[in-house]
Amino acid sequence: MIFEENIVALATPPGTGAIAVIRVSGPDTLSIVEEIFNAKGKKNIAETPSHHLIFGDIMDGQKSIDEVLLSVFKGEKSYTGENTVEISCHGSPFIQGEIIQLLLKKGCRLAKPGEFTQRAFLNGKMDLSQAEAVADLIAADSEAAKQTALKQLRGGFSHDLKELREQLIHFAALIELELDFSEEDVEFADREKFKNLIENLQNETQKLLDSFQLGNAIKNGVRVAIIGAPNAGKSTLLNALLNEERAIVSDIAGTTRDTIEESLNINGVLFRLIDTAGIREHSTDQIENLGILRSKENAEKADIILHLIDVSEGIQEEFDWLKKWKEKTIVVYNKTDINSEFKIQNSKFKIAISAKKKTGIEELKQLMFEQTVGDRISRENTIVTNARHKEALQNTMESLQSIEKGIAQNLSGDLLAVDIRQALQHLGSITGQVEVDRDILGTIFGKFCIGK
Amino acid sequence: MIFEENIVALATPPGTGAIAVIRVSGPDTLSIVEEIFNAKGKKNIAETPSHHLIFGDIMDGQKSIDEVLLSVFKGEKSYTGENTVEISCHGSPFIQGEIIQLLLKKGCRLAKPGEFTQRAFLNGKMDLSQAEAVADLIAADSEAAKQTALKQLRGGFSHDLKELREQLIHFAALIELELDFSEEDVEFADREKFKNLIENLQNETQKLLDSFQLGNAIKNGVRVAIIGAPNAGKSTLLNALLNEERAIVSDIAGTTRDTIEESLNINGVLFRLIDTAGIREHSTDQIENLGILRSKENAEKADIILHLIDVSEGIQEEFDWLKKWKEKTIVVYNKTDINSEFKIQNSKFKIAISAKKKTGIEELKQLMFEQTVGDRISRENTIVTNARHKEALQNTMESLQSIEKGIAQNLSGDLLAVDIRQALQHLGSITGQVEVDRDILGTIFGKFCIGK
Repeated sequence: MIFEENIVALATPPGTGAIAVIRVSGPDTLSIVEEIFNAKGKKNIAETPSHHLIFGDIMDGQKSIDEVLLSVFKGEKSYTGENTVEISCHGSPFIQGEIIQLLLKKGCRLAKPGEFTQRAFLNGKMDLSQAEAVADLIAADSEAAKQTALKQLRGGFSHDLKELREQLIHFAALIELELDFSEEDVEFADREKFKNLIENLQNETQKLLDSFQLGNAIKNGVRVAIIGAPNAGKSTLLNALLNEERAIVSDIAGTTRDTIEESLNINGVLFRLIDTAGIREHSTDQIENLGILRSKENAEKADIILHLIDVSEGIQEEFDWLKKWKEKTIVVYNKTDINSEFKIQNSKFKIAISAKKKTGIEELKQLMFEQTVGDRISRENTIVTNARHKEALQNTMESLQSIEKGIAQNLSGDLLAVDIRQALQHLGSITGQVEVDRDILGTIFGKFCIGK
Repeated sequence: MIFEENIVALATPPGTGAIAVIRVSGPDTLSIVEEIFNAKGKKNIAETPSHHLIFGDIMDGQKSIDEVLLSVFKGEKSYTGENTVEISCHGSPFIQGEIIQLLLKKGCRLAKPGEFTQRAFLNGKMDLSQAEAVADLIAADSEAAKQTALKQLRGGFSHDLKELREQLIHFAALIELELDFSEEDVEFADREKFKNLIENLQNETQKLLDSFQLGNAIKNGVRVAIIGAPNAGKSTLLNALLNEERAIVSDIAGTTRDTIEESLNINGVLFRLIDTAGIREHSTDQIENLGILRSKENAEKADIILHLIDVSEGIQEEFDWLKKWKEKTIVVYNKTDINSEFKIQNSKFKIAISAKKKTGIEELKQLMFEQTVGDRISRENTIVTNARHKEALQNTMESLQSIEKGIAQNLSGDLLAVDIRQALQHLGSITGQVEVDRDILGTIFGKFCIGK
């Protein structure tokens, strides 16, 4: 694909630094930059091989704008797959502005968010899911999120999808062959083999779909709701987990009115801790009632719930409404420093700690990790993190189910072929192997930062 | 000079962008980066020529941190004058942090502010005034400030100083020769010629000193105090100059209580507009009295004063206390739209405008420019912008005056030589040709951003 327009954008974060990088890409990049560049020494850009650096001045007519270093990337070897120059200038917003203005004057236009990566995709330098991984990589704020994005960027997910698609294409080819010979009433494709193949494809697709919950938690953080009665020590627990004084800790029950959200990194995975107002089963305080409502909402949305119980005066009431989330609840018995009589056997679903004395905190962290992520990061080869991919996989699944039903109902090949084409379409939309709607591309790349 | 330590810093502004650049410099840079780099293809850093780019992975053991592009600069050809690698990674703060942490683990230490440029200076890649120009260039927020810094970076100022120093050195050499033959009572150095030379040096030094007022205004902005009676239209004028609604404009006299400061760019020079509370000659309002005090302070510090007079009801009182700054005052007759009878001949020191109708505003801007900067930017070859340089030039001047006095008093060569050496020392401290105190270097480079 050949683009006619030349695009320019600041590629480094806005603001002041030692250096800033301005990226230019498009068919006339080399001649446009040549026109405003005065190399020290005899070099010029046209004669400079790809992946070389040249030092010189950016000139506006006779006036020097700045001394810069150019990185020259030619044609296919560049990120975008077309001629690209990166201008490394002094990191002042004023100079950045001047150079970009000059390039606009010379015929470039400002790049839209993600447009360099969009060109890389359209020029076949990467597929669509790899392009999406670029944005995920930049947004990643934990080791696990970054590794997942990096894997996707390297094409791990694309490879899995390609295998699924190839199996389907093989199947489709046989069906189409049947159609050509339909009058002769032969079956090239063994229906029993078909059934197995579709079952296998469904399993593989389901595996990918199942990985989304984990993928989403890795990408956006595992949501942890901390729930308990007033003065059960929720804020103290939060501080112990974060190992710093974050929440206002006070002995007065009900100090914490607002939802506090903090991030905690356990084994490279981000956990979002949501501390909410203390809950009594019944309260006449209107503000507190609002807090209860919010706690229930948080519990609903959470990936894991820490149900904090104060054991200093024996075990207190448990909340009935929490029981329906038993599967994702860890009961945390707190204040064991006060009640030394209290003893329980720690298990997957319960643990004794003292938030104040910081005992049992590391064990609790490990438990939270095991219950939500555990060894699934390394065990599962591919983890789907993108909601668009998930939707496409769900659509694929539906088509596969139609095919399965069709086979069971002994539908003719031409009817099966319709569903097969649909499944191929859905799978292909993830990597962009089939044509993807301009609007969808707009949505995908619109989330990128400018300059990428 | 050879440094033993390898330094690392983020060179691009902090935050999220498409890319970020991490700079490593020092004797072991190539082997340190080689250790954590896995090139795509067969290249390695040692075999890569200077000014080449290589694509690959930053590895922490078996784990990839990010896909990056390395810019390799070897020895003298680098910015610092020693082996340097710039790592262009994905622009996420998380990844930036990981790579810097890894480099610290491999034996680098975090660079101090300006340390890369300090090494460039100590390795003889640039002199001290050029190094200072780098920081000025990055801080420049107007065309004039940038051009002045760029000129200094290119060594224009250094060249002027070198000429002054060479004349003095020639003079010193002759004096020293006299000392060697002192017993023979010869005068190799013609005293009349000496007098002329010293006079000439004083003139040149004075020219540089005189340029500082302009240089300072260019670098930090020309200070403009807008002063006038309440309701004379100061805020409206400010808005007209800025061409936007900045100050709260109201018909109630005395709306503007606080000092408002805004920036205005006239012909590439930054003007700082300071609008102050309206002033009556006598006021019983305590807050307003404070405003008057502030107005007087602003007038004192201003490079130019706009004295705004409301002519709608005939010409009002003028302030006696303003007269002592007559030389730097432009009287601005405002509200000519209301009083159409009012006519004056515009001159260097007075102008008729209507802030409300925006007539005469461009003319006022040009007048402000002419009175403060004018053609002196292009006329004067070298403009001193740095307070440290100004101080050194003042010290040079004092030594030159001592020499002059000494010649007049027929002092012997050995006594003259003391003052000559001092003058040479002061001049040399600007470019760092003589040894500069570590504390002074610390102060100079401490103002830089990290990574430069």
